[in-house]
Amino acid sequence: MNCHQDFPYAGIEAGGTKFVCALASGPDDVRAQIRFPTTTPEETLGKAIAFFKANEPFSAMGIGTFGPCDLNPSSPTYGYITSTPKMGWANVDLLGIFRQAFAVPIGFDTDVNVAALGESKWGAGLGLDMVIYLTVGTGIGGGGVLNGQMMHGLIHPEMGHLRLPRITRADDFQGICPYHGDCLQGLASGPAIEARWGKSAAELPPDHPAWQIEARYLALAVSNVIFVLSPQRIIMGGGVMHQKHLLPLIRTEVQGLLNGYVQSPMILERIDEYIVPPGLGDRSGILGAVALAKHTAEKG
Amino acid sequence: MNCHQDFPYAGIEAGGTKFVCALASGPDDVRAQIRFPTTTPEETLGKAIAFFKANEPFSAMGIGTFGPCDLNPSSPTYGYITSTPKMGWANVDLLGIFRQAFAVPIGFDTDVNVAALGESKWGAGLGLDMVIYLTVGTGIGGGGVLNGQMMHGLIHPEMGHLRLPRITRADDFQGICPYHGDCLQGLASGPAIEARWGKSAAELPPDHPAWQIEARYLALAVSNVIFVLSPQRIIMGGGVMHQKHLLPLIRTEVQGLLNGYVQSPMILERIDEYIVPPGLGDRSGILGAVALAKHTAEKG
Repeated sequence: MNCHQDFPYAGIEAGGTKFVCALASGPDDVRAQIRFPTTTPEETLGKAIAFFKANEPFSAMGIGTFGPCDLNPSSPTYGYITSTPKMGWANVDLLGIFRQAFAVPIGFDTDVNVAALGESKWGAGLGLDMVIYLTVGTGIGGGGVLNGQMMHGLIHPEMGHLRLPRITRADDFQGICPYHGDCLQGLASGPAIEARWGKSAAELPPDHPAWQIEARYLALAVSNVIFVLSPQRIIMGGGVMHQKHLLPLIRTEVQGLLNGYVQSPMILERIDEYIVPPGLGDRSGILGAVALAKHTAEKG
Repeated sequence: MNCHQDFPYAGIEAGGTKFVCALASGPDDVRAQIRFPTTTPEETLGKAIAFFKANEPFSAMGIGTFGPCDLNPSSPTYGYITSTPKMGWANVDLLGIFRQAFAVPIGFDTDVNVAALGESKWGAGLGLDMVIYLTVGTGIGGGGVLNGQMMHGLIHPEMGHLRLPRITRADDFQGICPYHGDCLQGLASGPAIEARWGKSAAELPPDHPAWQIEARYLALAVSNVIFVLSPQRIIMGGGVMHQKHLLPLIRTEVQGLLNGYVQSPMILERIDEYIVPPGLGDRSGILGAVALAKHTAEKG
């Protein structure tokens, strides 16, 4: 018998723009939640700790963070945010700060791996062995759950930095990635859209030529993910994906790019079920963090 | 006690150009081997069956095949080669033909997943959780072993069809892939090299400009695999990789393309241990098939 069985789990979605903290046992039982902008580490982590202190007890914690971060438990910098360009956040010992504050098991992973876990447990990835979650917003990132495990390796996926062909030779937008210029994130993130068109994604009307270009670059990225991994489903979330006309354009472009080569009915006939929005809406990340806490508690 | 413990395993490397069949228990105990060109299914499979009939008994069989192929055990076409452009081989029930001939457990997977398994068990992937094997030859393909399991999903990886940027806008070689023109395989396979330069890879001297171009496209592909999967090691085999000057060029290009973003010592300082030739030389595929047979026997 587990004496903690009625305690909820603590989840943290540590985003580069905002933090979300919640106490919950699942999507239908969110007992407390708070959301605030990501400012300095001191202020931001102070608010998160104060929230959880006010809501003890809980039986475990899960953190899904922006990155790059160190996911290797045997590394001396395990749980750190590492080489982020985000001011003040490079080399922050995110996991250590929460470990010092709370004596519960704490799981730590990337925001996108954790969102994939949430979708896999309670959303659009339910029942599948191999699910990818891509977010398209201020940045572009991808993670996944493969046979119940989040994607780790040398470090973790960095799908936002995929190199893609230009959709036409006439496209001379330089891209905005400080590392790679015209990688996926450099060409198709929210800030890239704004740099290219002088307007944000939300301000561009659905019939603006921007969307065909955006769909084409995202479809090239999705195709490359299919060629490398052959996932069973690709879930696309994030702020830019809020423009509902974008997803159908991406699906059509992916079919065109694959050109009948990947002979699965999921691609050829049922692509609406293959490239999908998050089943948990904007809650994939925070509920994924709760799922990670649960997972961490269960494995002891 | 297992009464079959002294029987060897049967391995088949079913390539688009040649078949290799072996009876072995591991790299140091190959008891019989045969190799012949891939011609018609009847002739080729007839030779393979005759070889194994002459070498019975064996306790299990492993098949690593060219593809695309159906790896889904619950599919009615499980074990088939599916949409290959190779004359006569589309919709061949490869697994079924061997099942009919031999009453032993038979494992079935792609040639590159199986080569990754071989390298993982006895070669350059030993002790690692996440290893990718890329072959660059008549075709380009990639597979991998992730936490002991070969890469399956919707279908299986098709890394040869990755879409890549052109290395310069002046590169107007159209590519030779019948499905995608200038995908990775269209730009950098052995036949693509020959179509571009009028000479085979083996005929081009090491200081020919072809090699810088080849290295750059392969490095773009390797970078994309790193961004999607973050593997712990990438093993590069196949006929084109026999040109020993190519691998060092690829390593340098990968470092340039990642541009310090993936902050691992394996990339920044020890790339010679990160992108490596097969530990089993040209035997990754056939020994991988033997490893698959062993694996199939052990799981019952």
